[in-house]
Amino acid sequence: MKLEISVSLTYRLPEPVDLMLQVEAASGGGQHVESASLDLGEPELFSRVPASDGTCEPVWMRTSGMLRAAYRATVAIDRPMVDFRALPEVPLHRLPAAAVPYLNESRYCPSNKFHAFVERRFGERTGGAKIGAMRDWIESRFTYVAGASTSDTGALDSFVERRGVCRDYAHVMIALARSAHIPARMASVYALGVKPQDFHAVAEVYLAGDWHMVDATGMTRPTETARICVGRDAADIAFLTAYREIELVEQTVRVEKA
Amino acid sequence: MKLEISVSLTYRLPEPVDLMLQVEAASGGGQHVESASLDLGEPELFSRVPASDGTCEPVWMRTSGMLRAAYRATVAIDRPMVDFRALPEVPLHRLPAAAVPYLNESRYCPSNKFHAFVERRFGERTGGAKIGAMRDWIESRFTYVAGASTSDTGALDSFVERRGVCRDYAHVMIALARSAHIPARMASVYALGVKPQDFHAVAEVYLAGDWHMVDATGMTRPTETARICVGRDAADIAFLTAYREIELVEQTVRVEKA
Amino acid sequence: MKLEISVSLTYRLPEPVDLMLQVEAASGGGQHVESASLDLGEPELFSRVPASDGTCEPVWMRTSGMLRAAYRATVAIDRPMVDFRALPEVPLHRLPAAAVPYLNESRYCPSNKFHAFVERRFGERTGGAKIGAMRDWIESRFTYVAGASTSDTGALDSFVERRGVCRDYAHVMIALARSAHIPARMASVYALGVKPQDFHAVAEVYLAGDWHMVDATGMTRPTETARICVGRDAADIAFLTAYREIELVEQTVRVEKA
Amino acid sequence: MKLEISVSLTYRLPEPVDLMLQVEAASGGGQHVESASLDLGEPELFSRVPASDGTCEPVWMRTSGMLRAAYRATVAIDRPMVDFRALPEVPLHRLPAAAVPYLNESRYCPSNKFHAFVERRFGERTGGAKIGAMRDWIESRFTYVAGASTSDTGALDSFVERRGVCRDYAHVMIALARSAHIPARMASVYALGVKPQDFHAVAEVYLAGDWHMVDATGMTRPTETARICVGRDAADIAFLTAYREIELVEQTVRVEKA
Repeated sequence: MKLEISVSLTYRLPEPVDLMLQVEAASGGGQHVESASLDLGEPELFSRVPASDGTCEPVWMRTSGMLRAAYRATVAIDRPMVDFRALPEVPLHRLPAAAVPYLNESRYCPSNKFHAFVERRFGERTGGAKIGAMRDWIESRFTYVAGASTSDTGALDSFVERRGVCRDYAHVMIALARSAHIPARMASVYALGVKPQDFHAVAEVYLAGDWHMVDATGMTRPTETARICVGRDAADIAFLTAYREIELVEQTVRVEKA
Repeated sequence: MKLEISVSLTYRLPEPVDLMLQVEAASGGGQHVESASLDLGEPELFSRVPASDGTCEPVWMRTSGMLRAAYRATVAIDRPMVDFRALPEVPLHRLPAAAVPYLNESRYCPSNKFHAFVERRFGERTGGAKIGAMRDWIESRFTYVAGASTSDTGALDSFVERRGVCRDYAHVMIALARSAHIPARMASVYALGVKPQDFHAVAEVYLAGDWHMVDATGMTRPTETARICVGRDAADIAFLTAYREIELVEQTVRVEKA
Repeated sequence: MKLEISVSLTYRLPEPVDLMLQVEAASGGGQHVESASLDLGEPELFSRVPASDGTCEPVWMRTSGMLRAAYRATVAIDRPMVDFRALPEVPLHRLPAAAVPYLNESRYCPSNKFHAFVERRFGERTGGAKIGAMRDWIESRFTYVAGASTSDTGALDSFVERRGVCRDYAHVMIALARSAHIPARMASVYALGVKPQDFHAVAEVYLAGDWHMVDATGMTRPTETARICVGRDAADIAFLTAYREIELVEQTVRVEKA
Repeated sequence: MKLEISVSLTYRLPEPVDLMLQVEAASGGGQHVESASLDLGEPELFSRVPASDGTCEPVWMRTSGMLRAAYRATVAIDRPMVDFRALPEVPLHRLPAAAVPYLNESRYCPSNKFHAFVERRFGERTGGAKIGAMRDWIESRFTYVAGASTSDTGALDSFVERRGVCRDYAHVMIALARSAHIPARMASVYALGVKPQDFHAVAEVYLAGDWHMVDATGMTRPTETARICVGRDAADIAFLTAYREIELVEQTVRVEKA
């Protein structure tokens, strides 16, 4: 499976501004970037941060006037088709060091509050079967509502409001998984099936020694998804972080079968 | 400078429980553990997680009935006396990958909300001088009140309430620093000067290429402080995490000059 | 049915302090105070505020050193035994002006967030049947846990955490009712069946032209309950409000069948 | 001083919906409605709720398809020009019953959290001088930013973020006043000087036996302001409350000197 990815960002910058861009698909972890180009115009500054976790190399830049960024890539997805529901969870004391922080509460996922609910509702299952039941529970009870959330909306709000966009579905999924002591993180991705086409985000859970994508919105499949970045939650994986206020002019994301 | 550290924890466990212990001082980063012993009784399970960031090796255990843990160590502090106020900040695009996540919002530090305040109050300064002004501002305006906060209290609450314990001082310090685009994290520590004697926590900021301890409570000095763990905020550095409810019986922490 | 009520409050006051006391059972609304005494020692100031809503007359006092307050009363409950589950709701445009504010969000009951959940889970019922289904849902899913909440805990937290004390049960009940556009308020009460004996709080909903007590904890019955105060939520009905910090020494509440 | 008020609301209603409208200026309290018309088209239902607090008579309606509401009024403002800064506060025990609830925390004004800040910053002043200092503090530190807040934003957020629209300025003003034990409420108003022209909101504080408007944005003056509704905070005074989702088509508010 190959994905053709094409992204175009245009932002107006009232003053010179430092920007961090995380839009490039990574190689590794079940995917391979066959070709890619990133055109940022002529920024004053540009530097690439070597990845710290193997899946993302943020790009720093400083520019002014207008940001016009264009990213194109062909990414081969060779992620095996895995039924995560059949996988066992890893006993806590066998978790690798790198997975441990993903048990903790994070900005948008105050997971400790969900213990009683998770115990009651999903307590009889374990591992992938538990994750699957959580995923199905979210999908059946939540409504996808564009614009339903703000940068302040966390899993607590979304759990009560029963609606949101991809990031909100992922936050609730992550909060429930961590609450059951299963490491969970968030990935920004390009994927087939996202409607309307845009950057997308999914949860990833740690089962049987590896990370597995779980999309509670039901829109995407791991075999048709290219990972950009991973992090604790939406606070870590923004495709564009501006260290001053900037203004969106236009933004398009296209993902197609190559 | 050498510290003699002695910790004793006694907890009642109504049922068998997985525990993660982060009480051991680390070697490196300006300190050296000369001798140490950790006595955990006879747990059913015990495993040590290799450190992922060079400063902490959490210990997993499963046990039942009573947890009686005793930790003793002699730690030599050879951290240089540095006046962090004189240090420059690192330009964003020069930050190492490992420091970048500490710019982001975290569970207890929703730093983006503080931009306007930080810009107005501290905007004329940069680097260590800015951090110093933030630290002094917190110390002069906050009151140390034991019991003032719960596991839900974040930097937003503390900033408004103007009171808290060491974790709350650190959370506000971290939120202000990140809001000024200076990486900041939290360290659990043993230190002289903590009253009443207990586990302590301080902020650490990234200046001039290294992490520097900043204690907004004013109780401790880096040269008399031994680091245990670091993380995004209090969500990452608990000395004891229990994956069931447990009950405190007794807990003592002693830190003395060797 | 008659209740014998006996309350004793002892607080240490580090400095002279203004206090508002709301501990006296009211006459009217299905109950009649046959005899009552309130002994406040010798406060510097004392004044009684005429009730504004027919069910409570707060008492102001200023005192210093120690507060020793004793309240005793015999209250006849002649509230009819009503099955609120059989009652219809009042169409919005027929609500009396005094009931309208109880549709709004309040400090601890951000009811608008619950719309989707309430619509999905309880949308097929109306009026008292809907309220009854909400009450049963809460009772079956929540665990009464002393000390589970703080003065900051609202219905959003409790809904997620699935636990709390009487005030938390009432807050969730109120939030769900308002979310279905049924006016709901909170009453502080004395009641048989409260374990451990203490001040108690219940929700009240407006059905068929009158307010009806609903106790989601299942501990009490309206025919054995004497109302003290009503308000939007816990922010309005504290039995003791101190306008400085004060320290609890002892507090006892006894409610018995006369 | 006479104000000519002209309001036009057009909303699309996907299904029949109950609406509560609070757009009519009230007579009394320093203002007199000389002439007024409210045109609501031909709703299925219409009823006017007699005011419960002397300043507002909400209108209920049920309609479908489109809501087209037009309100026109001429209101004479005969509110005396009062320098609230010179007024004394009312001792707590002398407050009338109707003012007491406005000391309590409300949906958007968790005032108890501000005690330490208010004591430190404004503790040396009392009454109107204290209110004036609070108002000036807010105006000098906050920036008016359209779109800065959502229906979830409260005084805690705004205090930290130092920005907002009129409702946010009012919420912080109210929270600070209540924290100093001065009753404070919120009024929806029509006023000269609001830019861009729209519904406006101000705080009202209880001093010297009466309510006084305080506008921390500095845009309006009580002598050029017509009150519509009062309540605890924004949760009570919405000009339009829809009990289903509706969609804004157009909305204009014009206020001019007659």
